[in-house]
Amino acid sequence: MAQLFKQLTIAGVGLIGGSLAMVAKRDGLVGRIVGLGRTQANLDVALERGMLDAATRDPAQAARGADLLMLAVPILTMRATLERMLPYLAQNAVITDVGSVKGWVVRELEPVIPAGMTLVAAHPVAGKETVGAVSADPELFRGRRVIITPSAKSTADAIARVEALWTATGAEVERMDADLHDAIMARASHLPQVVASALAAALAEERVGGMLALEFGASGLRDTTRLAGSSWEMWRDIFITNRDAIVAALKLFGSTIEEFQELIETGDSAALEHLFKRGRAIREKLK
Amino acid sequence: MAQLFKQLTIAGVGLIGGSLAMVAKRDGLVGRIVGLGRTQANLDVALERGMLDAATRDPAQAARGADLLMLAVPILTMRATLERMLPYLAQNAVITDVGSVKGWVVRELEPVIPAGMTLVAAHPVAGKETVGAVSADPELFRGRRVIITPSAKSTADAIARVEALWTATGAEVERMDADLHDAIMARASHLPQVVASALAAALAEERVGGMLALEFGASGLRDTTRLAGSSWEMWRDIFITNRDAIVAALKLFGSTIEEFQELIETGDSAALEHLFKRGRAIREKLK
Repeated sequence: MAQLFKQLTIAGVGLIGGSLAMVAKRDGLVGRIVGLGRTQANLDVALERGMLDAATRDPAQAARGADLLMLAVPILTMRATLERMLPYLAQNAVITDVGSVKGWVVRELEPVIPAGMTLVAAHPVAGKETVGAVSADPELFRGRRVIITPSAKSTADAIARVEALWTATGAEVERMDADLHDAIMARASHLPQVVASALAAALAEERVGGMLALEFGASGLRDTTRLAGSSWEMWRDIFITNRDAIVAALKLFGSTIEEFQELIETGDSAALEHLFKRGRAIREKLK
Repeated sequence: MAQLFKQLTIAGVGLIGGSLAMVAKRDGLVGRIVGLGRTQANLDVALERGMLDAATRDPAQAARGADLLMLAVPILTMRATLERMLPYLAQNAVITDVGSVKGWVVRELEPVIPAGMTLVAAHPVAGKETVGAVSADPELFRGRRVIITPSAKSTADAIARVEALWTATGAEVERMDADLHDAIMARASHLPQVVASALAAALAEERVGGMLALEFGASGLRDTTRLAGSSWEMWRDIFITNRDAIVAALKLFGSTIEEFQELIETGDSAALEHLFKRGRAIREKLK
């Protein structure tokens, strides 16, 4: 494939940024890749694994000459990171990101983007429990979704080039309104996180007859609480920046769990069966 | 190991009953194994896989001569099943079960057990998503717990022999009060089931902007709702027979999820971090 950008600078060479760098490098999609990181140890891993041409902890140095800046840092630090890098970017630079929330990102970043530059906000819906460049994997995005949320400061050309980059990863790229994205993700991703964390937190210290109840859990409890092991740093920002949609999703869940409780209390087997089987039906829709 | 029983009759040759039969057969723990089933197809699988010496759909015929009867049928059908088999059992027969709820089972079965016979209620805490003799596996119980809940109609000898049978599977056998067992399982097992089913039911038909939100879920949603695929038949009986303890567990969870919602709404990051990390801590305790 033809080169899409001269220099890709990735702020945050973690699982997502590092994995994308590996694909860009493998397929020659960009001329050069520079990584900005907080710790030298992680940058050294990225360099050793060949995903970067250069690495630095200095935002100015990382930004210099980049015509594509990918913000792969926690959402709440994106704007400050961008502001420190802006003066050094190529004048026609495309700014993109990989945040799990899109409305907030667009609203925070658009005001600081100067004329000539463009914003193409994006969310690769992929992840695993491990973090850092050490867990980067060029196959991470294959078959997964990448959602692009075009906004006022997106141009057709910039969108097309960012989409081409993601298409090369094997992901299915699609476009969506940013707020619609956030409402959907609040339900499909942020809600399961809160549910898993709440279940884990509820049981953490729960003793019955002096015994820790969770020690009697089997694979079902383990699966249902797996997400509770997620990174607080990442989720803090999602909870703050997608608050309203998450609260709406929690209300939806809250009324369903109350319905379950009521039907169990009253022993209404027919209604309980209906509700239980409504839940069972989604299992077949989730690959 | 010496023979523990002359004839084991298993009512319900499914995943649990079939797996136990395979161990008993492999280790020569019983003289003979008879299976009682509802469908000939499943019994044929059990016979073909060599886990039974005889199979029948007739309770009287299955019971004849058994000095160990293992009830591996749904909880609410245990008493009726036992009553149809009682007249044909050996006079000193031991009755045991594999139900996930123990207080109810003890209270239902003890009144019908005649003098000379004993009850040793038990719960092997093991399972997988598949059902039937076809999925039976002699390694199913290795490293898992089997909880014995001795009661008024248990004798030391009967308990010891049932425990020896389960110990042979590689499980860790322990004794517990039946109601304590139920309170613990309501939290460690029944609560995660309701949470997973409620999350799945809440999202089943949830559309945003015309799109089904759950189609945007990734591995996190899949894990958190995996239990929603469980068998209604089994869970109906658990919801009915362990109602009070499950409602108490749901209240515990409900207050934690409300706490999450409140902290997200008010943006109290410090308290949210504390709660989130309380949940994260249990991940390390769950093998």
